[in-house]
Amino acid sequence: MLGATGAVGQAFVRLLVDHPWFELVEVAASERSAGKRYDEATRWLGSEIPRQVAGMPVRSCDPGEVSAEIVFSALDSSVAGEAEQRFAAAGRWVISNAKNHRMEPDVPLVIAEVNPDHMALLEAQRARRGWTGAIVTNGNCSTIALVSAIAPLHRAFGIRRAVVVTMQAVSGAGYPGVPSLDALGNVVPFIRDEEEKIEEETLKFLGTMEGEGIRPANVVVGAHTNRVPVENGHTICVSLELEHPVAPHEARAALLDWKGAPAARDLPTSPERPVIVRDEVDRPQPRRDAGSGGGMSTVVGRIRADPVLGLRMVAMAHNVVRGAAGAAVQNAELLVATGRMPSP
Amino acid sequence: MLGATGAVGQAFVRLLVDHPWFELVEVAASERSAGKRYDEATRWLGSEIPRQVAGMPVRSCDPGEVSAEIVFSALDSSVAGEAEQRFAAAGRWVISNAKNHRMEPDVPLVIAEVNPDHMALLEAQRARRGWTGAIVTNGNCSTIALVSAIAPLHRAFGIRRAVVVTMQAVSGAGYPGVPSLDALGNVVPFIRDEEEKIEEETLKFLGTMEGEGIRPANVVVGAHTNRVPVENGHTICVSLELEHPVAPHEARAALLDWKGAPAARDLPTSPERPVIVRDEVDRPQPRRDAGSGGGMSTVVGRIRADPVLGLRMVAMAHNVVRGAAGAAVQNAELLVATGRMPSP
Amino acid sequence: MLGATGAVGQAFVRLLVDHPWFELVEVAASERSAGKRYDEATRWLGSEIPRQVAGMPVRSCDPGEVSAEIVFSALDSSVAGEAEQRFAAAGRWVISNAKNHRMEPDVPLVIAEVNPDHMALLEAQRARRGWTGAIVTNGNCSTIALVSAIAPLHRAFGIRRAVVVTMQAVSGAGYPGVPSLDALGNVVPFIRDEEEKIEEETLKFLGTMEGEGIRPANVVVGAHTNRVPVENGHTICVSLELEHPVAPHEARAALLDWKGAPAARDLPTSPERPVIVRDEVDRPQPRRDAGSGGGMSTVVGRIRADPVLGLRMVAMAHNVVRGAAGAAVQNAELLVATGRMPSP
Amino acid sequence: MLGATGAVGQAFVRLLVDHPWFELVEVAASERSAGKRYDEATRWLGSEIPRQVAGMPVRSCDPGEVSAEIVFSALDSSVAGEAEQRFAAAGRWVISNAKNHRMEPDVPLVIAEVNPDHMALLEAQRARRGWTGAIVTNGNCSTIALVSAIAPLHRAFGIRRAVVVTMQAVSGAGYPGVPSLDALGNVVPFIRDEEEKIEEETLKFLGTMEGEGIRPANVVVGAHTNRVPVENGHTICVSLELEHPVAPHEARAALLDWKGAPAARDLPTSPERPVIVRDEVDRPQPRRDAGSGGGMSTVVGRIRADPVLGLRMVAMAHNVVRGAAGAAVQNAELLVATGRMPSP
Repeated sequence: MLGATGAVGQAFVRLLVDHPWFELVEVAASERSAGKRYDEATRWLGSEIPRQVAGMPVRSCDPGEVSAEIVFSALDSSVAGEAEQRFAAAGRWVISNAKNHRMEPDVPLVIAEVNPDHMALLEAQRARRGWTGAIVTNGNCSTIALVSAIAPLHRAFGIRRAVVVTMQAVSGAGYPGVPSLDALGNVVPFIRDEEEKIEEETLKFLGTMEGEGIRPANVVVGAHTNRVPVENGHTICVSLELEHPVAPHEARAALLDWKGAPAARDLPTSPERPVIVRDEVDRPQPRRDAGSGGGMSTVVGRIRADPVLGLRMVAMAHNVVRGAAGAAVQNAELLVATGRMPSP
Repeated sequence: MLGATGAVGQAFVRLLVDHPWFELVEVAASERSAGKRYDEATRWLGSEIPRQVAGMPVRSCDPGEVSAEIVFSALDSSVAGEAEQRFAAAGRWVISNAKNHRMEPDVPLVIAEVNPDHMALLEAQRARRGWTGAIVTNGNCSTIALVSAIAPLHRAFGIRRAVVVTMQAVSGAGYPGVPSLDALGNVVPFIRDEEEKIEEETLKFLGTMEGEGIRPANVVVGAHTNRVPVENGHTICVSLELEHPVAPHEARAALLDWKGAPAARDLPTSPERPVIVRDEVDRPQPRRDAGSGGGMSTVVGRIRADPVLGLRMVAMAHNVVRGAAGAAVQNAELLVATGRMPSP
Repeated sequence: MLGATGAVGQAFVRLLVDHPWFELVEVAASERSAGKRYDEATRWLGSEIPRQVAGMPVRSCDPGEVSAEIVFSALDSSVAGEAEQRFAAAGRWVISNAKNHRMEPDVPLVIAEVNPDHMALLEAQRARRGWTGAIVTNGNCSTIALVSAIAPLHRAFGIRRAVVVTMQAVSGAGYPGVPSLDALGNVVPFIRDEEEKIEEETLKFLGTMEGEGIRPANVVVGAHTNRVPVENGHTICVSLELEHPVAPHEARAALLDWKGAPAARDLPTSPERPVIVRDEVDRPQPRRDAGSGGGMSTVVGRIRADPVLGLRMVAMAHNVVRGAAGAAVQNAELLVATGRMPSP
Repeated sequence: MLGATGAVGQAFVRLLVDHPWFELVEVAASERSAGKRYDEATRWLGSEIPRQVAGMPVRSCDPGEVSAEIVFSALDSSVAGEAEQRFAAAGRWVISNAKNHRMEPDVPLVIAEVNPDHMALLEAQRARRGWTGAIVTNGNCSTIALVSAIAPLHRAFGIRRAVVVTMQAVSGAGYPGVPSLDALGNVVPFIRDEEEKIEEETLKFLGTMEGEGIRPANVVVGAHTNRVPVENGHTICVSLELEHPVAPHEARAALLDWKGAPAARDLPTSPERPVIVRDEVDRPQPRRDAGSGGGMSTVVGRIRADPVLGLRMVAMAHNVVRGAAGAAVQNAELLVATGRMPSP
């Protein structure tokens, strides 16, 4: 586990300490933390550091210091690029939440329920790079929430264009992250690089394997991203133009029918329902719904006609679980379940 | 002043106690408050009730009880409809913030800087209704923020379609309004009737006088409305399709050039700049910008290209001042300055 | 379950739907809700109403309408007084969170870990009132948090005087409760009747059975109560004067040793540790610690010398669980476990 | 103006740009900012940087770079100690908000309304240190709020002991200061060194000149300090033991009578009433009252008997104005008005 002391790293720790398949054996972090004990190096954001981890020594993010076969990375993008390559070159499976390699053509960018077939990129990746290991990525937290909600509609009706406006929780910026003088009673209508990530990653997620690469989906996305004073849960308003326009109740039915790709269905971290449709007029709400499905369900509501693009709705997902650590752990489970990665 | 004890009513009181043209002579409210002293009937939301008003008796909302010629109404929509008609029939000028009469074809729905010429509807109104008084309305708070920001672009380039997503302050719901268990650390993606108001009122505001009526603007608006834990200031993300598409810098220039209609320029409540363009990457923000121009300026930022509709930006205005009481007081000033209403 | 639709009532529902000993068979509420289905009558504050309860008809709070032997009451104090007496007179066990009967001399006011022996008042209660049923109460939410934290010190060293300052979560006021315009970014230094409850109930909780009644503890409490923008968890700063003054480390040891009364130790709702001592310099915190022990543990920290009264510390407990519904359910368990109440 | 880019530095800038006596001629800050323009170096926390200051070059905090006679210091305590001494040694008047020199026996620690006579320490300071300049300090923000409120009672009745519990705004920690993940919906019951400052500075503020030094007041203070999610305004619950116990209405009368020391009465920054007594049952509140008297009034409420120490009440003051920049500017005005410092 690389980058274990940060906000997303802590979420990884929580998901891994009691994981039925994986065992958390080592934690690593930046040089500032390396050498300390985990509980000394970490500003724990929950109540109590799990006992199994509290006393672990923090290692440096170096393949010589970390022996695990499967390496989860919550590294900051300032260091993730090279560090993850070193681990992959050293034969490790790097399951990364960092943005650095996501858009590289031979790196899978995967949501287990949406595009598990993109894992096939790994063959090209290893061939081209000469690695015995590999890098697999999940997406940006708001992109995952968006794509989880619109993928069923894209599969069923084709999406042409989407105007997307996010209201994102402060935990998405990590710790210390957003200063409280910016967050309290305020909206900050800007998150650096976030709109670009949503507009690009969405197309790769919804794209199709073609030969050894991904053909991006023929979708145009325009995003506005905002920070709001919410702890966990990104809320997203979406207006959609479909290739095959449908009435709201048909869109709702498609979302209700959605069970996610078969490969993802019985993974330990997969929720019972990847998309939950709520029919109350004022849902989803992050405070009420972010914990749905253990934080792994995306909750959709307010599905209705849009006078401009045809269809509109609201989606919400837990940015730290569904949108980050949970997505990565689920990707690792997918690799094991499909036999790509050796069972740990 | 009708409905003087509520959240918007208090904003009226603050604007009127020191007004250079108007004198606040009477306060009226619902039967529950009538007969009490203003300071006993009112849960004052600021620090201290202005001395001139604190001891005033609260009257009932009846033309027999209230003698003022000019009557500002912050009445709840459940009672505003009839009450305002009674006052207009009794020869009073009713300057109303209530929604009830806004969309009636012979009632002006006016933002002083945007469509002061719509006051011409008053002739039809009086003729048709046989009133010696009149009803003039301003719009819904989020609609005013939106229209203030997009009117300059509509005038310059023509707006065809707009996707609008609001993040609205809790003061917009009045007092007691939003329960704190719904507001704290949460987003509620629904405000009753709000999307409809934005989608309809905008067309009337941007419409043109034609004969004795208004031809609504040929614009399609699709709105998402959200409540966020902010005290004052509605923030709005807008994606726009223009008839004559322009680059962001041209849109910015049009907004910078905008001084509002000449008739509105020197009114006491008019801000120096009706639209303020901020070039910082993360503005406007309600906590920092809601007080701009004494709460009467609309602040616009992040003007940039939109891959879906062509242009996008963020607008923010103080919902209680620019979006409610201030807009009404300014409308009254406009009526005086243009000689439609007798100088008080 | 009486008063099942409110904030505390919902907490009862959550604790009872999966309870190992009790089965939730009926829900009742005010006349406004009676006759509706539970999910129609309730503004559910969590994500989803448990399926077993959603479709239940809401009954009126009348012993003729409700057949359960054990009746949990989360009724508002405006109606709880009489309603609870009717149920007790009709032979039911009323386990009440309401304030109405708490201070009556023959009504047990019990925290299971602190003063389970006070249940002996029930004999006097039945004899004097001629009831076949009974009324048992838990305390005010902030009093429970306080008493849970100081009872171990009182037992060990005797408390003479206590200055108590609370910072209370908005959920303590129920729903709709505190308007967001009062709560957001604010402190309200007043909660009606709260200081009186803390100052009186504490003495009864810490009092001793003497003959057929309680002799109140010889302790003087002075309280300041404040509302802060926190969802769940009341935080309390306490300065204490002890009969037998001790150093902070001795007070800490007494709190660490505390296991609660033996009768409470193995009840289903009892937490592993009724008091958790945290040694981090900045704990307890409601956001991090309110869920400790499933919301039933009181978390204490910052135990240090006080220049004025001798000892000071900070205590925090979940006001809706430890301070209300959980305390009541635990009291019912205590009655069953000690054979006072028939096993359901 | 030293330390001009931080949160308190910005408050100084706001107070000084339109000051009737002082002219803001130079801004200085840490080496990181020196050389930049003020608007480039500053994350401005309000709406717009005043035009007069925006383009100023930021100088380093060196007497050779800064030519002003009167130097306001909002420096961080990590650098303030030496930097302020250098300026004083170079003949400048240093009016400091930093904590470094406050408790030195020959440095005045002054609230203009409370202990202006302590400025007499300056003679000893200059004699002992051989300086032609001088250092004058105001206190910690929560101490100033406390002392402003209790000084009138100390003068009238003598205070023996005080238990003090603060609920402090996040702006007290500067920018970036408190991470939003710690602040949102939370209470942090610890602020480093804050309790010590309150317990020590209070005694110096309330002390008396004796010979060339200050005899600290014979008062014992025990403090609990808490951070709450409030932007501006520290709220303080105080329980007081008086030498001459009085009824609450007598304490209230003493606070109402209080006009502050005559020397402070007509200074430009002095508010009309240094202490405002509010009789509403739920005041003061930071959101409503922090702006009272332009942020310079301390607001007191809930004056009532305390069963433990005799008297209790709540005080609130704006931590950045009354508690920091405003106090310093007022001290400079006091020095000019009393002829100690040359008129600028």
